[in-house]
Amino acid sequence: MTPSMQRLLGELRKLPGVGAKTAERMAYFLLREPKEEALALAEAIQEVREKTIPCSTCGHLDERDPCSICSDPSRDPYVLCVVEESRDLFAVERLGEFRGRYHVLGGRVAPLLGKEAEDLGLDSLARRVAEGGVREVILATNADVEGDATALSVRRALEALPGVGSASGPVRVTRLARGLPSGSQIEFAGAGVLKEALALRRDL
Amino acid sequence: MTPSMQRLLGELRKLPGVGAKTAERMAYFLLREPKEEALALAEAIQEVREKTIPCSTCGHLDERDPCSICSDPSRDPYVLCVVEESRDLFAVERLGEFRGRYHVLGGRVAPLLGKEAEDLGLDSLARRVAEGGVREVILATNADVEGDATALSVRRALEALPGVGSASGPVRVTRLARGLPSGSQIEFAGAGVLKEALALRRDL
Repeated sequence: MTPSMQRLLGELRKLPGVGAKTAERMAYFLLREPKEEALALAEAIQEVREKTIPCSTCGHLDERDPCSICSDPSRDPYVLCVVEESRDLFAVERLGEFRGRYHVLGGRVAPLLGKEAEDLGLDSLARRVAEGGVREVILATNADVEGDATALSVRRALEALPGVGSASGPVRVTRLARGLPSGSQIEFAGAGVLKEALALRRDL
Repeated sequence: MTPSMQRLLGELRKLPGVGAKTAERMAYFLLREPKEEALALAEAIQEVREKTIPCSTCGHLDERDPCSICSDPSRDPYVLCVVEESRDLFAVERLGEFRGRYHVLGGRVAPLLGKEAEDLGLDSLARRVAEGGVREVILATNADVEGDATALSVRRALEALPGVGSASGPVRVTRLARGLPSGSQIEFAGAGVLKEALALRRDL
């Protein structure tokens, strides 16, 4: 194996979900396909890093600032969906249901990895809410331990603002529902999922 | 999703084993990691394509011509291991057992894909054998239908040369052994594997 192949293998292995075998298959593919095809991937990486910038309003990664969502007048600026990462924003956008705007934290609270609430730039979210008009902040963090911790941190930061969080206040703070995933069968549900679905049962 | 992200996703999806979800995870990783890390992958691809050339003797992909194996005087030039692709060569090299040289076909006979024996550049292999001195040609093609067809095509091309293939001739043409993979259990062997192992049974 040549030095340049070793280097490529090393870089490919850094990609998520790519182990030694997969990296070898990919490297070999990049060596064997027509040169312009292999270079197209290299150029696409360079282009995306050149053009993509975080939106100074919501933190979303886009080619313009403010991003295409923040600058879309048809989107309700007073309903904010808070997500951990831009990839979560893409997932919500794919539904084509949500017509509000977003706030991308760019991370999550993960004490074991040294990620605290202070690293999430909650100030800019608080500023958006403090400017007034916001009716609802939807916490769309992941449904796991870090996602729960992140949601709590956001709520805590917002509760310091006037009118936030109290049932009668003008700003609701909500969170995505938890329970059995739609279409699933109880027989195959994980114990944690079923336990939570039971605890959070609703009147029918 | 921005045009540059779409383009990157499209390029990533061309990699072997990468579907829509994996491509998204990779693209997002490339967007979020430090810029120089993402660009290092792009540069590694460009470098490997700039530096890698096929060996004019054996067809192996290397940074020099003749390749490091063909130009290694300690490797026996009279035992040739014929492989379909350079990645197969790497697999044999990893064993650290084989001290001969290689011939990389750069493909396989696959009539359904329109790949015939004529596309394999068997002339250059025949020339190496015709130059004299070769004692053995080991056919290390894959153990599948196309690999079998490829091995047969190579043998046929070589048999046209004087002294090849006859048991008493100076040039042996051999093929990798077939049977139960070492360490495997009969209970779990596929029917095709077991059938072949039975048909090819050897005296103990």
